[in-house]
Amino acid sequence: MPKVHIKPQDVTVEVEKETTIADALEIAGVKILLPCGGQGRCGRCKVVVEKGEVRHRSVARLSPTELKQGYALACQTLVESDVVIFVPPQEELIKHRLPTEKVAERIALPFPCDTVSNPYIKAFYLEITPPSLADNTTDFERLKRELSLQYHLPELIADLPVLKKLARVLREAEWKVTAVVEMHNWARKEPPRLIDLKPGNTTGKLYGVAVDIGTTSVVVYLVDLNTAQVVDIAAEYNKQISCGEDIISRIVYARKPGGLEHLQRLVVQTINELIAQICHRQNISPDEIYMMTAAGNTTMIHLFLGLWPEPIRLEPYIPTIRHPLPVKASEIGVDINPEATVDCLPGVGSYVGADITAGVLSSGTFSTDKLTLFMDIGTNGEMVLGNFDWLISCACSAGPAFEGAGVESGMRATAGAIEEVWISAKNYEATWRTIGDLPPEGLCGSGIISLLAEMFITGVMDKSGRINLSLPTKRVRVGPHGPEYVVAWKEETRHKEKDIVITEVDISNLLRAKAAIYAGFRTLARAVGVQIADVEQVLIGGAFGKYINVEKAIQIGLLPDMPWDRFKFLGNTSALGAYMCLVCPDMREKVVEIAEKMTYLELSADNTFTEEFTSALFFPHTDLDAFPSVKKLLKSLRTP
Amino acid sequence: MPKVHIKPQDVTVEVEKETTIADALEIAGVKILLPCGGQGRCGRCKVVVEKGEVRHRSVARLSPTELKQGYALACQTLVESDVVIFVPPQEELIKHRLPTEKVAERIALPFPCDTVSNPYIKAFYLEITPPSLADNTTDFERLKRELSLQYHLPELIADLPVLKKLARVLREAEWKVTAVVEMHNWARKEPPRLIDLKPGNTTGKLYGVAVDIGTTSVVVYLVDLNTAQVVDIAAEYNKQISCGEDIISRIVYARKPGGLEHLQRLVVQTINELIAQICHRQNISPDEIYMMTAAGNTTMIHLFLGLWPEPIRLEPYIPTIRHPLPVKASEIGVDINPEATVDCLPGVGSYVGADITAGVLSSGTFSTDKLTLFMDIGTNGEMVLGNFDWLISCACSAGPAFEGAGVESGMRATAGAIEEVWISAKNYEATWRTIGDLPPEGLCGSGIISLLAEMFITGVMDKSGRINLSLPTKRVRVGPHGPEYVVAWKEETRHKEKDIVITEVDISNLLRAKAAIYAGFRTLARAVGVQIADVEQVLIGGAFGKYINVEKAIQIGLLPDMPWDRFKFLGNTSALGAYMCLVCPDMREKVVEIAEKMTYLELSADNTFTEEFTSALFFPHTDLDAFPSVKKLLKSLRTP
Repeated sequence: MPKVHIKPQDVTVEVEKETTIADALEIAGVKILLPCGGQGRCGRCKVVVEKGEVRHRSVARLSPTELKQGYALACQTLVESDVVIFVPPQEELIKHRLPTEKVAERIALPFPCDTVSNPYIKAFYLEITPPSLADNTTDFERLKRELSLQYHLPELIADLPVLKKLARVLREAEWKVTAVVEMHNWARKEPPRLIDLKPGNTTGKLYGVAVDIGTTSVVVYLVDLNTAQVVDIAAEYNKQISCGEDIISRIVYARKPGGLEHLQRLVVQTINELIAQICHRQNISPDEIYMMTAAGNTTMIHLFLGLWPEPIRLEPYIPTIRHPLPVKASEIGVDINPEATVDCLPGVGSYVGADITAGVLSSGTFSTDKLTLFMDIGTNGEMVLGNFDWLISCACSAGPAFEGAGVESGMRATAGAIEEVWISAKNYEATWRTIGDLPPEGLCGSGIISLLAEMFITGVMDKSGRINLSLPTKRVRVGPHGPEYVVAWKEETRHKEKDIVITEVDISNLLRAKAAIYAGFRTLARAVGVQIADVEQVLIGGAFGKYINVEKAIQIGLLPDMPWDRFKFLGNTSALGAYMCLVCPDMREKVVEIAEKMTYLELSADNTFTEEFTSALFFPHTDLDAFPSVKKLLKSLRTP
Repeated sequence: MPKVHIKPQDVTVEVEKETTIADALEIAGVKILLPCGGQGRCGRCKVVVEKGEVRHRSVARLSPTELKQGYALACQTLVESDVVIFVPPQEELIKHRLPTEKVAERIALPFPCDTVSNPYIKAFYLEITPPSLADNTTDFERLKRELSLQYHLPELIADLPVLKKLARVLREAEWKVTAVVEMHNWARKEPPRLIDLKPGNTTGKLYGVAVDIGTTSVVVYLVDLNTAQVVDIAAEYNKQISCGEDIISRIVYARKPGGLEHLQRLVVQTINELIAQICHRQNISPDEIYMMTAAGNTTMIHLFLGLWPEPIRLEPYIPTIRHPLPVKASEIGVDINPEATVDCLPGVGSYVGADITAGVLSSGTFSTDKLTLFMDIGTNGEMVLGNFDWLISCACSAGPAFEGAGVESGMRATAGAIEEVWISAKNYEATWRTIGDLPPEGLCGSGIISLLAEMFITGVMDKSGRINLSLPTKRVRVGPHGPEYVVAWKEETRHKEKDIVITEVDISNLLRAKAAIYAGFRTLARAVGVQIADVEQVLIGGAFGKYINVEKAIQIGLLPDMPWDRFKFLGNTSALGAYMCLVCPDMREKVVEIAEKMTYLELSADNTFTEEFTSALFFPHTDLDAFPSVKKLLKSLRTP
């Protein structure tokens, strides 16, 4: 069997001939990112083959120079003989701009909810008369009797793990105990369930977690169930990223033998590490967390539960379940009280998931009489139009371009990413601001929006996205992928290796992404017979949304042209919705109503969308009259 | 560390100094029976120390000769140096008289039950229209919709293991599937639950098992849930016997580290082997068994579920739970469909368990207007007095003497056991019949009753159990434990090693056991103010009960003296009750009523019992007038 020697880790593994380099690296335990899930689409898993023979399945993402230098895509290259492979440093997952920074800031319920009258979890302190020959009721029935006498709890059930310790805890605690009870469970409609029995009075220690499982990042809110307040927050990248950056790549990865189980483990591990972090910080035991709610897109929820995701990807795009039934923490390996219920919120369909229903809930879209557009521009670009009376949604598969993926110099919104750009209309020179004020490494989503707007407004590119090569600046040039604009020179960058550029190919990708989103709005509006201009408020959820410059997003036609005060950026509406559902059963019912009420418009089967998409394939749009502020600005600039 | 060499197995193990020989044998994987659970009480774990030093903790059960020969109790002897141990052949667990013999015989419901209108488990065959873009309902909601449309099933829940395979089974089966649904669950009151989804039409394959978990033996009935009929039966000794013969020994064993888990595994293993045996014979898959009901005494049920049994043994004798909540097969390791419910029937208290409530159910005691005495003479000797209106029960801790344990030549009712004895009133010679017509090995319960009656009637012993040593026969003599009667001479026995005898010590034990049982009847009767003579029928459950000779049992005062036609032997009433509860939810409700209605009389706290016990310490009783048939017989014999 061929030997694969891996540098700089200096490890050697033996593999079958025709093994991919990616698989060999996995066997060797060397980490390599496969953002597209190993399909050869993203070109991010480049390695250098220093010695030995390999066979390339695809070189589409490699330039001729790179090929000459020995570069190969790890996921597309098969080992044919003993080889030596050099693995370049992998992008660090630096925590940045995730809500951890805001721990001090109080996350409040967005509007008043009844968190008191009917909570899911209650703790009851009991001092029980020990049994005697004259009163020889069994332990469980005695506990039930006391709960009924002292707290008017008429019924009680308990599962085996709690029953197993019942007799011991009662006696060791000398019959002074705290019974933690799940008062109701929407799916099972079963009687109150004893989740745990603790020695002494521990009624003050009653916690829950609300979790947003994003394709890119996972956010955990620790909630004190006695006060219904958020105590702490932690966030981290979803460890699944190493198996694919978008949901389609993850679903493809899940087809590998053991792939689904691996993805399930990775997301649970992400959540567990966050919970451990919070518990350590707050000095509580994970065992004192008695409930978890989770929101996330339909694929994320399926992977979290270990449900087969393949049919989500294939027409007609069918998930196993829309409204997952609650499970126990122990069933899926979440490290909280093993008897705790893990309740995943309901979604609408394969491409409008619980993150959106939770967002519609926490943004108040479901209760307002204003015509509202709610959107969550993430990897998928879901949006919802409606009010208290009706809701219609779509997902426009914008792709991850606005998250920096699939863009030559794109990167995630981590330290060193350019987040804002200004181009001089006189000499076409660029200036920028980076996250963390570090030397730039690449462009993140907000940086890209800003850059496109500046290029368009200053005429560096025209409305169809073509770069004006005749401008008197070295920043416009023809690179290996065609015309491009240099945002930062190699010497200015952190690694001083490559210029940071945006190419016409990138622009064309971004144009399609923004066109898909804008066409989404229009199609939704047309479907219900309203004008975009009639929209009274635009509510934008998602961490990404928080950093968009509205003016520039309108200038490129990503957001509709309307007064800026109609836009509201709400942050993580998905986590907020999960939090509301954790502390307020009324809200948990509301989110079901939202999921049931919401119409889903499948854009891939919609002619209007195709039409609208084509019209939106210009900056800002074919119909400039739809963007009066941009029209006015252009006029003012071009008539000096 | 000392080396222990074990013969005849010829294995050597190294153990810590001061390890018991029993533990060393366990480490070596050499089987030795510990009927009393390793307390040194029963003297059954004798081994020979051929070489090396040991320390005896107790030699109470060894004769001076045995000690001289090197005998030691494995459970009471500590290894001090390298030793050589000889392990005598262990009693074979020969299957005999267990219901397997009666497979051909049909086990029928003892009275008509409604098994049709409201079954626990139903299977629904569905041909489902596959999803399309126009009808993109999710898999689970689609299944629900079809069950509602085609079978008017309004609601449905499912747990993760079924949801995980849902999408695949539907597609691989091309949307033609059988949904197996648990229609209701008494404890959870949850909506119908999808237990399994099978490709194609498998509605014909729908099974359940009813299990009686006895201290000594375990019986499994396989039931076809479509017809509610018993298809097959299997029985085997409870593998826990190796850890103690009675419930107290088992509870003591459970105190060892890992002891409870070991006992739980052993009983589950016993059940699983029986299920595997039946499934093989009937050519069905264990996966097609969708429900299990279990009856057994409270300790057996606690050990089966892994609940801490210690408080059952200690005053005030409190079980964890009287009415265990249903669990899933996968939770306790029973090899049927992992999603199947395992439902243990309710008991009354620590010493009147579900075997008795099931017996009261299946014997019809709960529904008759006749004053009925129901009894189950096993290791514990539980009995119930009452009718449709009231029920009172007690457990008289008879001990295992009538099962052959603790009696010099006692043995279980296996091949070679003497089951009936006749003594000549002329020459006091004995003749006997053995199980399997083999040369005798010892005395089983029915043999002991028969022997005692003959000895009493012929004057070999007097009414206080003293052997008449002046009789002109070599069969009465003084042995190492005092006066004894020889039932079979060494040369007549199977192993030709020892005479089969009954000693005065044995008789005194048996006298106490029978006195406890009879005092139980009387105390129950007195507690409710009726006369024993008022009892209109005596229903006797338990495999042991089936082989008692009523006449002889009355002669020794074990059963009350009344016309023989009032006695009915019902066989395994516990298994029968579990079967009824499996196929008929009405009966499942009845058994709860029975458990709730039944008063439990704690005899250890009852003065009447002590009085009655003392009066019953004679053959047949102090008050011979209470046994008119015996009085008459004695008179006829003694007035020639």
